Amino acid sequence: MSAPIEFYFDFISPYGYLGAAQIEALAARHGRTVDWKPFLLGVTVLKVMGLKPLMETPLKADYIRHDKPRLASLLGVPMTQPDMKGVTSVRAERAFLSLKQRDPELAKRFARRVFERLWQRGKDITAMEAVLEEATALGVDGAALRADIESPAGKARLEAAVQEAVDKGVFGAPFFIADGEPFWGSDRLWMLEHWLTHGNWSSQPR
Amino acid sequence: MSAPIEFYFDFISPYGYLGAAQIEALAARHGRTVDWKPFLLGVTVLKVMGLKPLMETPLKADYIRHDKPRLASLLGVPMTQPDMKGVTSVRAERAFLSLKQRDPELAKRFARRVFERLWQRGKDITAMEAVLEEATALGVDGAALRADIESPAGKARLEAAVQEAVDKGVFGAPFFIADGEPFWGSDRLWMLEHWLTHGNWSSQPR
Repeated sequence: MSAPIEFYFDFISPYGYLGAAQIEALAARHGRTVDWKPFLLGVTVLKVMGLKPLMETPLKADYIRHDKPRLASLLGVPMTQPDMKGVTSVRAERAFLSLKQRDPELAKRFARRVFERLWQRGKDITAMEAVLEEATALGVDGAALRADIESPAGKARLEAAVQEAVDKGVFGAPFFIADGEPFWGSDRLWMLEHWLTHGNWSSQPR
Repeated sequence: MSAPIEFYFDFISPYGYLGAAQIEALAARHGRTVDWKPFLLGVTVLKVMGLKPLMETPLKADYIRHDKPRLASLLGVPMTQPDMKGVTSVRAERAFLSLKQRDPELAKRFARRVFERLWQRGKDITAMEAVLEEATALGVDGAALRADIESPAGKARLEAAVQEAVDKGVFGAPFFIADGEPFWGSDRLWMLEHWLTHGNWSSQPR
């Protein structure tokens, strides 16, 4: 069994949402599993890279606005455009990591619910209540989860995850690493699939 | 006959080089022609978008260094890594536009030579002598070309081209526009091809 494909995501990224909707089926086609790893774009893009937020970048922001819905349509993934003002994924990602410690598959189900809450239903994912609502719907003990993600250990877990992402060169979402090969973007899945099929970068006949 | 596919490029972009190596064959498969349009990444990225140069951006620069050769290999396009210090495409792009006025096909042949000079042979494209060497190899009168690209009209032509690119939302290279649909990146050619085949963004069965 080969090593899992690392899937780095931030719930605030619409392209991360598109990646989340595709990666498990793609991996399964190649007999691979997926290790879901949250990080924070705010830290990577603003602090480490020293860039401005994507949607405040001239020209590129307009492109993204046009590109998101057409790519979602092409991939057959439902997508809405939520109001992103003040949205942060910090609590949801702490909750993900708390659940992952106990049960990675449960954590994935939670992650899919959070992604869909924001990008399909257009509802906020920032508030503790929103995070607990999605977790308790899966049978999770809300009070215990809340206590864990408000604890120093729960906060340190996400800080460590963000640092690990930076250390591995992750700078955008979604970001995939397979056998050490990095892939940035849900539009690079064709290249990840090539790698999983061939294991090299030799050109193939069309 | 449908409108040509607009292909925006800057000779300094390795991904632009990869795009240039693919776009004509891709367009021809769909009965389309290509209108090659130079612009300057230095103006778009640094001035209009307010970003730092790609290769000075933490994390992303490392990714690009790893990604360029593997993508070139996958596409079957030879590529070297030239010393880019001080390289500017201003004169080469002025020369391209001067040739294009007279003969667009000649200008494309010139552009391919300039791309290959830099990205296959690793030679400078900045100096007037370098630009004239590639043009005269195609039978162009070097003295007349030099006079034109040093004239106010020759300089204004490139300024207008850069402004047109910004006005159309072009912010990276390569950038393609087909029937008003914009595509950024040589890794998005699969999506351009989808558009040319289907003319819509409905999802297709795998």
